[in-house]
Amino acid sequence: MYISKSSSVVLLVSFLCLVVLPVKSSNGCGYDACNLGDPNKLNVHIVPHTHDDVGWLKTVDQYYYGARNNIQHAGVQYILDSVIHSLEENPDRRFIYVEIAFFWRWWNQQTNDTRSKVKNFVNQGRLEFISGGWCMNDEASTHYNSIIDQHSLGAEFLRDQFGECARPKIGWQIDPFGHSREQASLFAQMGFDGLFFGRADYQDIDRRTQTKTRELIWKASANLDRRSWLFTGVLPNGYSPPGSFCYDIFCDDPPIMDDPRLHDYNVPERVETFIKAAHDEASSYATNHIIMTMGSDFQYENANQWFKNLDKLMKYVNAQQTNGSDVNVFYSTPSCYLYALNKVGRTWTSKTDDFFPYAHHPRGFWTGYFTSRPALKRYERLSNNILQVTRQLNAFSKTNLRGSIFPLNEAMGIAQHHDAVSGTEKQEVAFDYAMRLSQGIDVAVDVINKAYDKILPLDSKTPPSAPQFLCQLANISECLPIEGQDRFTLILWNPTVHTISHYVRVPVTKDYTVRDPSGHAIVAEMIPVSESTQRIPGRKSFALNQLVFKTILPALGFSTYYFEIKATENNNNNNEKQVLVTHNSECILQNEYLRVEIDCQGNLNKITNLKKKIVVPFSNQGFYWYGSYPGNNSGSEFQASGAYIFRPISSDPEPVSSKRSITCVKGQNFQSAIILFNNWASQEISLYDDAKMVEVEWTVGPIPVYDNIGKEIILRYDTDIQSDSKFYTDANGREVLERIRDYRPTWNYSKVEPVSGNYYPINSRIWIKDSNRQLTVLTDRSEGGASIQDGSIEIMLHRRTLYDDALGVSEPLNETAFDAGLVVRGKHLLIIESSTSSALYHRVASQRFYMNPLATYALPPLSYADYSTTYRQAWSALQTDLPLNVHLLTFDQIDTNKYLIRVENYFELHEDDTYSHPVIVDLQKLFQSQGVISDIAEMILTANLRITDMKRLEWVTTDNRSSKIDVKKDLSLKDLNILLNPMEIRTFLVTVE
Amino acid sequence: MYISKSSSVVLLVSFLCLVVLPVKSSNGCGYDACNLGDPNKLNVHIVPHTHDDVGWLKTVDQYYYGARNNIQHAGVQYILDSVIHSLEENPDRRFIYVEIAFFWRWWNQQTNDTRSKVKNFVNQGRLEFISGGWCMNDEASTHYNSIIDQHSLGAEFLRDQFGECARPKIGWQIDPFGHSREQASLFAQMGFDGLFFGRADYQDIDRRTQTKTRELIWKASANLDRRSWLFTGVLPNGYSPPGSFCYDIFCDDPPIMDDPRLHDYNVPERVETFIKAAHDEASSYATNHIIMTMGSDFQYENANQWFKNLDKLMKYVNAQQTNGSDVNVFYSTPSCYLYALNKVGRTWTSKTDDFFPYAHHPRGFWTGYFTSRPALKRYERLSNNILQVTRQLNAFSKTNLRGSIFPLNEAMGIAQHHDAVSGTEKQEVAFDYAMRLSQGIDVAVDVINKAYDKILPLDSKTPPSAPQFLCQLANISECLPIEGQDRFTLILWNPTVHTISHYVRVPVTKDYTVRDPSGHAIVAEMIPVSESTQRIPGRKSFALNQLVFKTILPALGFSTYYFEIKATENNNNNNEKQVLVTHNSECILQNEYLRVEIDCQGNLNKITNLKKKIVVPFSNQGFYWYGSYPGNNSGSEFQASGAYIFRPISSDPEPVSSKRSITCVKGQNFQSAIILFNNWASQEISLYDDAKMVEVEWTVGPIPVYDNIGKEIILRYDTDIQSDSKFYTDANGREVLERIRDYRPTWNYSKVEPVSGNYYPINSRIWIKDSNRQLTVLTDRSEGGASIQDGSIEIMLHRRTLYDDALGVSEPLNETAFDAGLVVRGKHLLIIESSTSSALYHRVASQRFYMNPLATYALPPLSYADYSTTYRQAWSALQTDLPLNVHLLTFDQIDTNKYLIRVENYFELHEDDTYSHPVIVDLQKLFQSQGVISDIAEMILTANLRITDMKRLEWVTTDNRSSKIDVKKDLSLKDLNILLNPMEIRTFLVTVE
Repeated sequence: MYISKSSSVVLLVSFLCLVVLPVKSSNGCGYDACNLGDPNKLNVHIVPHTHDDVGWLKTVDQYYYGARNNIQHAGVQYILDSVIHSLEENPDRRFIYVEIAFFWRWWNQQTNDTRSKVKNFVNQGRLEFISGGWCMNDEASTHYNSIIDQHSLGAEFLRDQFGECARPKIGWQIDPFGHSREQASLFAQMGFDGLFFGRADYQDIDRRTQTKTRELIWKASANLDRRSWLFTGVLPNGYSPPGSFCYDIFCDDPPIMDDPRLHDYNVPERVETFIKAAHDEASSYATNHIIMTMGSDFQYENANQWFKNLDKLMKYVNAQQTNGSDVNVFYSTPSCYLYALNKVGRTWTSKTDDFFPYAHHPRGFWTGYFTSRPALKRYERLSNNILQVTRQLNAFSKTNLRGSIFPLNEAMGIAQHHDAVSGTEKQEVAFDYAMRLSQGIDVAVDVINKAYDKILPLDSKTPPSAPQFLCQLANISECLPIEGQDRFTLILWNPTVHTISHYVRVPVTKDYTVRDPSGHAIVAEMIPVSESTQRIPGRKSFALNQLVFKTILPALGFSTYYFEIKATENNNNNNEKQVLVTHNSECILQNEYLRVEIDCQGNLNKITNLKKKIVVPFSNQGFYWYGSYPGNNSGSEFQASGAYIFRPISSDPEPVSSKRSITCVKGQNFQSAIILFNNWASQEISLYDDAKMVEVEWTVGPIPVYDNIGKEIILRYDTDIQSDSKFYTDANGREVLERIRDYRPTWNYSKVEPVSGNYYPINSRIWIKDSNRQLTVLTDRSEGGASIQDGSIEIMLHRRTLYDDALGVSEPLNETAFDAGLVVRGKHLLIIESSTSSALYHRVASQRFYMNPLATYALPPLSYADYSTTYRQAWSALQTDLPLNVHLLTFDQIDTNKYLIRVENYFELHEDDTYSHPVIVDLQKLFQSQGVISDIAEMILTANLRITDMKRLEWVTTDNRSSKIDVKKDLSLKDLNILLNPMEIRTFLVTVE
Repeated sequence: MYISKSSSVVLLVSFLCLVVLPVKSSNGCGYDACNLGDPNKLNVHIVPHTHDDVGWLKTVDQYYYGARNNIQHAGVQYILDSVIHSLEENPDRRFIYVEIAFFWRWWNQQTNDTRSKVKNFVNQGRLEFISGGWCMNDEASTHYNSIIDQHSLGAEFLRDQFGECARPKIGWQIDPFGHSREQASLFAQMGFDGLFFGRADYQDIDRRTQTKTRELIWKASANLDRRSWLFTGVLPNGYSPPGSFCYDIFCDDPPIMDDPRLHDYNVPERVETFIKAAHDEASSYATNHIIMTMGSDFQYENANQWFKNLDKLMKYVNAQQTNGSDVNVFYSTPSCYLYALNKVGRTWTSKTDDFFPYAHHPRGFWTGYFTSRPALKRYERLSNNILQVTRQLNAFSKTNLRGSIFPLNEAMGIAQHHDAVSGTEKQEVAFDYAMRLSQGIDVAVDVINKAYDKILPLDSKTPPSAPQFLCQLANISECLPIEGQDRFTLILWNPTVHTISHYVRVPVTKDYTVRDPSGHAIVAEMIPVSESTQRIPGRKSFALNQLVFKTILPALGFSTYYFEIKATENNNNNNEKQVLVTHNSECILQNEYLRVEIDCQGNLNKITNLKKKIVVPFSNQGFYWYGSYPGNNSGSEFQASGAYIFRPISSDPEPVSSKRSITCVKGQNFQSAIILFNNWASQEISLYDDAKMVEVEWTVGPIPVYDNIGKEIILRYDTDIQSDSKFYTDANGREVLERIRDYRPTWNYSKVEPVSGNYYPINSRIWIKDSNRQLTVLTDRSEGGASIQDGSIEIMLHRRTLYDDALGVSEPLNETAFDAGLVVRGKHLLIIESSTSSALYHRVASQRFYMNPLATYALPPLSYADYSTTYRQAWSALQTDLPLNVHLLTFDQIDTNKYLIRVENYFELHEDDTYSHPVIVDLQKLFQSQGVISDIAEMILTANLRITDMKRLEWVTTDNRSSKIDVKKDLSLKDLNILLNPMEIRTFLVTVE
């Protein structure tokens, strides 16, 4: 269903009037509302909760409405209806709710009466929003920009509708399959006091259970010190109730049958069993407080069943105190449990590594989803690029159409879910996620047009230019609307705060003169669209060529390139002469900085950093496949490789072919080697004129499965770098963690899976290094990867399995399109540098990679002369670039004169001599085109609390370090130069005049 | 779990203070509260309902609590919680509730607040009790006494808690498997205005659908004329919603997705589909009103899901009226639907036969359950006998312990359920029904003791006698407490209003002198316990003999027989001499009235009525078996014989053996032939001294299944009676219907199953006849039977199947005990008479058969001399017997001076020259021991409304006869002589001074 623009706008009115003032928590909610139990008893915190996947086996809206219950019985509308009623029935009852994507859907449909009831529950601390993101995001395949956005989206809704009592204070990542350190760090920056999750490696849990260290202080950043510390707890039963105490409609456990006049009276047995369960659980935890998570997936559809039995159970269990029982049980929330632990006043162990990879049994490493559904993973990343650009255009043009950005923002919020971008949903649901992004982009394009309508005309009376449109299939050299046109424009918006040079490829059916913003015809080389691209199923374009040219784009601004058909075809020939194409010959790509040597058999043999005189020889670089372990859904020995799990049949991957063909294309600004490994795997290695890195565009698919073997395709870079078992991967696009093969920092690791057990998420980069060399690979999306041999980096690109891995999705991960396996294309950027100078390149490049210039096309009816006198062809929001280590993470117009911004120093400590240092930014410079900043408030990361009001609980580690930090001071309007420490993000609400 | 007496009493206090005054229905409830729709539209009555089996796959209490949800997800407590909340949410919503066994359990646990809410809903007509029995009783295997009791139990509760607004007015037999005419007649007498059911023979439904006669006037009695007429409707979809409109948690139909901002918006499609469904249904019904039953088994556990979607559906469907739609849909109830039909003012077709047998497809005749679980069926009948005697003893002794009779009354109410006495429940549930009856009897025995404590002592200062106890295993000659005792007493309470002679068999390990109430030692013959009885698995008795003697019992009174061990063992020998035992010789049993000829091979050859000179030769009388059709739960061709279905492999049953052995026992008062067919089938044919009928005690089991063939055992009586395809069976122990082989009175019957399709329920009797002879067989429980050949009666006694018949119970009907098939024993009484004189015998005998004297034993420490001077040994509540055609159906002490009684003329019209006529009873005579009647009110059958206030709706049949009858007048205290027409039951609330 297409969301009409008007309705999309309407649905936003309810909560977009963001007013963020410091609000004191009332006495009725927050920690003040907690029952802290009895210090002399074993206190059991009963936490009724539901875990509502924002799409998985059904789409988010099917889950919301309870449609398609034949797939999975689940209807969130009924859960919320039902819980609210149950809270009315007994003031002792409490409930937590997590996924605001669902809550928002429900809230939109409620009467004022119901809303008022709900507000009362929130104000009394009886309904508590936990985590409060739009979804419970995946931690392995998400980018920090979108994690922050999705949490901010939920936080904004809660703040607007409920105020401070609804501000989430606890991370609740109960289901995600491994836990990222960056996620914890972001939670700390969101003002959270703690984090609970349900899944951790079975070996890790075993050790922590034995040592009573399932609860700890996670030191979640190597840069932010105590500002990143987060109390973290591994929940006792995943996120389920203890055995035989599930009272949901999905459960068959015995209800409390307490009428002695009826048959099967079971109160004494139930009480005894519960008291034993409490003692059993207490034996794994450090204090006399334990938590019981009373709920699970889509539970509480009939909350009465849960609460009615819990009420009785708790009454009868506590009644045993008069008989000497030490068990004290009461309704609670994760916050209250956390607060009770805090009040115990003990010290806690800490850790600095993360919780990847996650295995639930020796053969069950959840490392497949790092790569599962690579096309969706890329589309999600691209959608964020479009979202951020749209926000900037809306804000810098002061178009104030935030409501029309909401659908894309919402779709992105949904896409962060741990069964969305993770790739672990059913195929139909994956389609729905993609459709939501697509619909969101469609509405965003309207905003882009409204913005350009304001920015482009030189004269305010000028009518708007022809509409801008995206060419989203440009990666397969297809842009149908421009095909055959005599003239068109290309506008590129650069969303970074730095002027950049940027190469563009435009698929064309004719040859064109391309004029830059100053009117100069620039060098635009016509190179052929490769045959493998032409063969991609579904490609509709007739374009056999693409124009490649270099653009220079101003910071936070745009340049327009005007295309006019060349008068004579002869010119075309002239151009062709300049591009040399050879087949199956040696191909040396070289520019001022780099030399890439590929032999006539298509082998990448060497890359040399000419300036630094660093040589990295490669051997056997290329595509390999692991066979996917088949399974029968029973027992760990039969664990199949599937959407979640990566389990190769053999640890030695097979090369996809024994020989390759190579086409070498050399132009003036551009050289590339197109290497076909077979009819389903190829790479194009490109070097642009002034590029300091090598681009590898890989194309994989349709993965053949005629042999009934699922296959998981990697691209491997084998070098002679002496990497000494170590490799490095980023967390969510920010800090990088050291990985050591067959090793875990916090427990004695028993290796069973030599490949899968060494895979880690790559959200933006992976590297290996030795004393003087570092090979860094940047990715355009999240992928899984590892270094299985010293000197080798392997990155999993694409997967096609024939068995379900028995974790619920009940489908093999078998993506198809056009009656064959799905073809996926993507890019790696290779950086060959010394390890001390690598950061400069990978930090800058990775920010530009995810925040790419946005190309929009238009078909103006005007000649260049008319166009250039009517419309602005270049513009920048900045007078000068900001410092290189500054990134503009968010620039969002909230209201006429109000903006939400986030600025970031995206370098880590100690990685670059120049940039790994604090940097100063003058915020007024960012607003020079908006006006004078008249009010400014620094906010916590999610922008739902002034940072001066953030007071996190104090924790002490076993080495007697306290988590306490000084409260930040308010910013003065007199000095808008703010300092950004390495890896620091600062968030501001700005009002301009 | 044993129900303690005190708690049993407590739970009754809430509703046993029965005050029945005429109450006018308030304007808010009843027909006044009905929406009658729009005369120019198709009016769709939406009836939200749940169908809650009072035990089936789980026990009633497991269903109530929602325990054992692994067997079946169902929890009635949540249904009622949930419905009440949903009714609060929207005043348009309505709901009906049926099974008071569940409602009572729930009501007991509610707060006053909730009760008050519920009362409001009832008073507003929004919650309507339909049918309102303790359960929805089976119609094929129930006895009218217990149908009336179970409906009265529910009606009393409703009346007491809610008043007139809660009085049920509609029969709602949506699930029972065939429908009895007597049930309809009783409903009419309960003041019901109509009856709806879901199941009828598929051929019948097809014809009625084509002719739009699914709704009709059932003329339900051959005796009561218009007082028995009942509007009857066959519901459109069984009792389910139309396809794709089920919104229960058990259903997967699409919810109404009406937020256009979300994906899958489906309002137009849902509305269109509903309107089509309404028109489709309307095409099968006669008026512009149709009913949609929105619910099913145990639905509405989360009522919100149903109502929320129904609210939306109805809103959007009715909105289409502005676009010309003729569909008008609204919440309604069966009463309101009925009332709307009544207001249409048309005439209706009628019928006089019943709805037996029921087939849902050509191979699916639901005639197996007429016999399934014969032991449970007998225990249920016996329990009623005990219940009625306990009531009489409580009442006549003015013990006023009605609360202690409640557990048995409640257990009987539950046992009437259509998956209880029907035998179609899981084995564990059958055990629970039996346990409930057993527990009820245990508490009733306390009442019996309290009553005898008041009645027995001759002097009020005398301490109570030794406690009375039952010997419930007397049918296998076991009574352990008296074994080896030197003395004991036997008290026999005669619950009929006529003096009777009655033979008793007492199992003994010693010989005793037996004294009658006047102290005379009577003839008590010692006869051996048969070897086959001794071998019955589980029999613990050491008794090898039984004393047989004749007793004379006063009407509504008792006689005590005192047993004293004989001084010398020699006497024993003397006694033995009097009893002649022969083996495998001819055996002629003969008394003044009858001669039974059995040859030396054990063949019953002839029975002669000596007085009437009527001879009936028999051939091949004995046991036969049908093989049970095996099945695989798929499709009608694979229909298995099972708990519900009787489907023989062959239409020719096999004899159980080729030869027999016979033991002939002849005493002074008693003669019998014990005929062993094999080691699992035998019969004992007995003739008592002054008996006018022959007793056949059959013993069947363990049915062998070593050949992997299920077996269904019949006892067949083949005679030369020229029965001309006709036979006669009773309905629920009252009126008898003519059955014609391979024929249905109301449609052109296509025969597929020659045996099973001719089976009918036998609740008390079956006969065949020709011009001057009638063979009547009386049964001691409900059994299935037929006449498959002229002159033949076959009665199915016992069944053991190895396949489930795929109708939900998911178990073969394979009753076992002591590691073998269950052994079952029972009695037939054979009457050989002319057809014109048979009624006298079978009417009287069948009443005495179900209302047998109750034997209680005691072990008084007193010698006979002391006993007889201390305790009363005989007593009668009557000075003289009541007329022979009068039956005292109910005698129940409600409160100190209040009694509920039912008296009945149990003869049909035209069946007996003397007794098929109105008879006069002086009610004061019944109360001579209670006091003078100071107030009396005639009530409807269920005693919840004065008969003077009963105003049933008027219906007109197509032959222009109106159902209207004159309202009865109040009874005058001056003339307590009441008239009972044939088959009339009259109910009175009596106050005495």
